[in-house]
Amino acid sequence: MMEQIKTITRADMADVALGGAFLGTGGGGDPYIGRLMAEQAIDANGPVTVLDVEDIDDDALIVPVAMMGAPTVMLEKLPRGDEAIAALRSLESVLGRKATAIFCIEAGGLNSTIPIAVAATAGLPIIDGDGMGRAFPELQMVSMTMFGVHACPMAMADEKGNALVLNTVDNLSTEKFARVITVEMGGAGMIALYPMTGAQAKEAILRGSLSLITNIGRIIGSEQKANRNPADKLATNLNGMRLFEGRVTDVDRRTEGGFARGQATIEGLDAYQGGSMTLRFQNEFLMAERQDGTPSAMTPDLICLLDLETGQPITTETMAYGYRVIVFGLPCDPKWRTDAGLALVGPRYFGYDIDYQTIENLNM
Amino acid sequence: MMEQIKTITRADMADVALGGAFLGTGGGGDPYIGRLMAEQAIDANGPVTVLDVEDIDDDALIVPVAMMGAPTVMLEKLPRGDEAIAALRSLESVLGRKATAIFCIEAGGLNSTIPIAVAATAGLPIIDGDGMGRAFPELQMVSMTMFGVHACPMAMADEKGNALVLNTVDNLSTEKFARVITVEMGGAGMIALYPMTGAQAKEAILRGSLSLITNIGRIIGSEQKANRNPADKLATNLNGMRLFEGRVTDVDRRTEGGFARGQATIEGLDAYQGGSMTLRFQNEFLMAERQDGTPSAMTPDLICLLDLETGQPITTETMAYGYRVIVFGLPCDPKWRTDAGLALVGPRYFGYDIDYQTIENLNM
Repeated sequence: MMEQIKTITRADMADVALGGAFLGTGGGGDPYIGRLMAEQAIDANGPVTVLDVEDIDDDALIVPVAMMGAPTVMLEKLPRGDEAIAALRSLESVLGRKATAIFCIEAGGLNSTIPIAVAATAGLPIIDGDGMGRAFPELQMVSMTMFGVHACPMAMADEKGNALVLNTVDNLSTEKFARVITVEMGGAGMIALYPMTGAQAKEAILRGSLSLITNIGRIIGSEQKANRNPADKLATNLNGMRLFEGRVTDVDRRTEGGFARGQATIEGLDAYQGGSMTLRFQNEFLMAERQDGTPSAMTPDLICLLDLETGQPITTETMAYGYRVIVFGLPCDPKWRTDAGLALVGPRYFGYDIDYQTIENLNM
Repeated sequence: MMEQIKTITRADMADVALGGAFLGTGGGGDPYIGRLMAEQAIDANGPVTVLDVEDIDDDALIVPVAMMGAPTVMLEKLPRGDEAIAALRSLESVLGRKATAIFCIEAGGLNSTIPIAVAATAGLPIIDGDGMGRAFPELQMVSMTMFGVHACPMAMADEKGNALVLNTVDNLSTEKFARVITVEMGGAGMIALYPMTGAQAKEAILRGSLSLITNIGRIIGSEQKANRNPADKLATNLNGMRLFEGRVTDVDRRTEGGFARGQATIEGLDAYQGGSMTLRFQNEFLMAERQDGTPSAMTPDLICLLDLETGQPITTETMAYGYRVIVFGLPCDPKWRTDAGLALVGPRYFGYDIDYQTIENLNM
């Protein structure tokens, strides 16, 4: 169904950014900043080769790079451009070898586009996959954690020139240390972590993510050009569903502990008139509740907010009073529905006192 | 006047800890924990050689090691013993060479004894000197900063096995990053930093600190044995002065931002009857104010709290209602009275809206 992509050119970046914004599920930062960085890097260094993980040697070194921090901050504190390369080089130095390929820690938001900029600048290919199949707020929340890949050594760098290399006892500790350091960096920093061999990656990653992002971007883009809302075609192609439509009437958003947390209320329109939905988020949308308090979708399934007319993805930091929106749901990767997956990213991890129910069951 | 020491044996550790508690000026942690660690390490590995910095090669590698964090926490979270060695080894690994000698970042508190334990365990000599001539709460507050020695690369390790290596753009940034990391480590961690060549150390360190500590410890110990309060002899030998005597009537102490902050009120006894003195602290005593609000001593001069009967040094975290005390003052190293020194550790750095006045002038 989905076309597998082999290279990313400048012309592809609009689709990548659009698809990344969709899979960002409201978080992960606006991919636009990373799109600009990637376009500049591709202009200077040529297109980026996209590799299937099966085409990588077992002893290859695969390095995910990402921006870490509150998306709200990322909007105001633009990366200088070389911090991500600095983090990559710092990690290579500790490991005593060069990276074979770059990797996306998450498939959504800013971190779907920044690794492409890094790959272009470093002259490296990028793997068609990621660690989340969407965006999640904490860095232990990757499929690699389930397969015993250690987040450390992890390199961090900020735009002022501060840098460090972490070695923690487990991936949750990596998140905790890196989070306070990110706050001290002014709210966001560039990171390189989860160094993996090709053999580890073949077992531990989620596959095809860059192809998926690009295809989603193409659908949204072509439907927008045809003046159609892309929700229907996305639902058909991605096995997704419209959960609600309405107008944003209240947004409570705060930056705390290095995260953007809060909730939004949407009052129903048209077929949903008289009803309401509450979306709860920590960087990403984590819970969609109907007016009667029952869940309509919950983490790790994807909850995406789209503009009611254009289908443009809306992030938790830009949504505001008056926006007319579609709440769109998508089943997560099956790996997240295992006990190990739900322990990492299920509703209870985020403090919701409820067992996970699939979006399919909740909307039968 | 002061005897220069050449080795530190098990038998010396009582004096080192006592002198270290005195120069801790209320902070730096109780040297007793470090004394136990040093005694064990000396039992296992033999006495520690103390070197004059002039006897070190110019290209030697000198590495200060220390515990960083709130002394209040250090009392409850004992070091496991090998974290300091882990920090040293981690720094050596980054630098690609072995340390020639160990160094004390501060001459007071826990950090006057822990480096001796590390030196004994690592089989290395220790330099007779330190970076403060006392204790200060922040790690950029060392004479090395005035002479352009960078705190980084800096290694940190905790008792759980978490470790990292920092590289920051300046020493104040090192303090800020290391402080939040220390908080995440549970309030305290072991650090190795300010790696210096012998040539740098000859210019940048304060000399003779271990000899000074040992001699102060001997004075306090021998006067205590003779049932005399050591204050008079300390005043004669150290050019110090009694500032006040009285009873602690109020202590306001809180742990915030990784520091123990607060103030204590002392009501006068005997010759000081009817008066009172307020001591303000951030880990260490920083300001002594008379009843009329005028200062009697201020940072960087040393403000020490001694038991009125025994002359035993009292730390900011153990002082409590009812203690009968002597407030004892001591001029700081002349390097701290320069503009560069006062910018680092003068009263305005700590938020007191007052120009520095020497303890000699304030008590003429």
